This record gives sequence, structure tokens and C-alpha cells, in this order.
Amino acid sequence: MKFNRRFASAVSLLVLGTACSAGAWAQAKPETLVAQRQSAMTLQGKYLYSIIPMATGKIPYDAAIVARNVGYLTVLTQMPWDGFDARTADVKNTRALPEIYKDPATFKAKRDTMLAELGKLASAVKSGNEAAIKTAIVDTNKACNSCHDTFRAKG
Amino acid sequence: MKFNRRFASAVSLLVLGTACSAGAWAQAKPETLVAQRQSAMTLQGKYLYSIIPMATGKIPYDAAIVARNVGYLTVLTQMPWDGFDARTADVKNTRALPEIYKDPATFKAKRDTMLAELGKLASAVKSGNEAAIKTAIVDTNKACNSCHDTFRAKG
Repeated sequence: MKFNRRFASAVSLLVLGTACSAGAWAQAKPETLVAQRQSAMTLQGKYLYSIIPMATGKIPYDAAIVARNVGYLTVLTQMPWDGFDARTADVKNTRALPEIYKDPATFKAKRDTMLAELGKLASAVKSGNEAAIKTAIVDTNKACNSCHDTFRAKG
Repeated sequence: MKFNRRFASAVSLLVLGTACSAGAWAQAKPETLVAQRQSAMTLQGKYLYSIIPMATGKIPYDAAIVARNVGYLTVLTQMPWDGFDARTADVKNTRALPEIYKDPATFKAKRDTMLAELGKLASAVKSGNEAAIKTAIVDTNKACNSCHDTFRAKG
């Protein structure tokens, strides 16, 4: 899909004969990709970690904050994946392990599991069932951690 | 509003007599707030800078990418503001200037201008008028830069 879009863009360039600067078409630098995917993860942490204590009863449950955060998480969770490009494998300052690029099928499977859990959480929020929402928050966090355990160096 | 919510939560804690860990109620560290707001800005850059060359004709216009990115930007642009807390004024590794906390009215006015420009951009995307969208992309970027020029140290 990504390849096809890039290919389609390249074709349209050829067809249109559009002049374009090399800079505008240059791929993002590996360091930029790492910073961008880390930014998405940092914000996922901001909005997930603040509702986990609500799910586990450590702080009072606030339905409005949960709904807002789950909405944010649904959008943020679309953002990191194009940053996991094999060109970033040699970048320093990242805990992402090279196994991501050696075993992309497992990486994608864990990503998809997490997206599925987050989808269940969004559905639970729509339903308004507080017990289901709390369970889904914990399950979403488990799915995040499952991928981190395999593909992220210990902090 | 933020104060009221915090106050209301504190009251409900007292009323319920809920046990809670100090950690769960601790405010985010200033360094965390800076990292989170910088993450939002990094992602705003990812999704805005990639469509500016479409607005200025440097690369072919892709309506699907523009619509996706404007949707992302609308969500991301809700995220940085609670990170501009006066407690972060002494944090290193930020180009945010202390004027943000000395002149919060101007900071908020520039923020609101940017939000208004982004709102116009989202409306233009809904209308599908390519010329209006391109103008609004450029105007949104100008509003970002207007705040940066005043409240961010030169890079």
C-alpha cells in the first residue's frame, strides 16, 4: 500500500513532468523517523498511563478523561508504524531492537493485536460499560507491553 | 477548568475516602511535560511539513494525504498546551522561552489564532476546494511560525 502510493506518485510525476526540488522528494532521515515514532510512543504513554490507574482503581474513574484519551490513542496509534523503517536499524538513541526488521511478521502481528485491543477499548467506551472499559484498558496495556517485551531493549 | 477538575477530583477523593498511591496523584515531572509537548510538536511537524510542498506546488497534490494529515493535525493540536506549565520554565533542552509564562495572554492569543487557522483548513478539506485548502495550509503554517517567532528561541 505504501509502496503502491509511492509508485503511483512517481508515475504521476513522470506523466505530469512536474518540476520538483530534490529536497521535497527526499526520504525522511532515519534520525527523523526515530524521533517521530518516539514522539508517537511518548504521547501514547501520556494518554494511556494516565487512565491505567483509573482502570485498576488506584484513582477515581473519570469517564470524560477516559473517552478523550481513548479517542487520542486511536489516532496516535496510527502514527508510529512508518517510522519502523529498516533504514533506522543503525540509529543510536533508540531501544527498538533489530529483531523488528529480522522478524517483521511477528512485529506486525503484535501491532495488529494491540490495534485490535484498542478497537475493543474504543467500542467499550462507546457502550459506556465501565467494567468493560476498565478491562479493555488493562488488555490494551498488556498488548503494548507484549510488543515491548520482544522488540524493545530493557530500559 | 484544569484547576476545577483537579479540585473536583480531590473533593471526590475526600468524599469517597478512596485509598490511592501518592505516585498516581503526583503531578507529571517538568521534564516529562517538556518531552510530551515536544512530541506533539514533532508530530505536528511530520504531518504539516509534508503537505506544505503540496500547497506551494513543489510536489503533486494528494487529496487523501492532505485529508489524513489535517485530521491528525486537528487532534495533535489539542495536545501540547497542558505541557506549557510554569513549572517547566527551568527545564533545559527546550527552546520554549520564559516569555510564555510572563505573557500568557499573548501566548494564548497566538495559540487561538493557530487553532482558528487550522479550523479553517479542516473546513476547507471538508469542502474539497483545493485552492482554499492550499491557502489554508500556508496560513496555518504562518500561524505556527508567528508563535515560534515570539516564544521559541532560534534553533
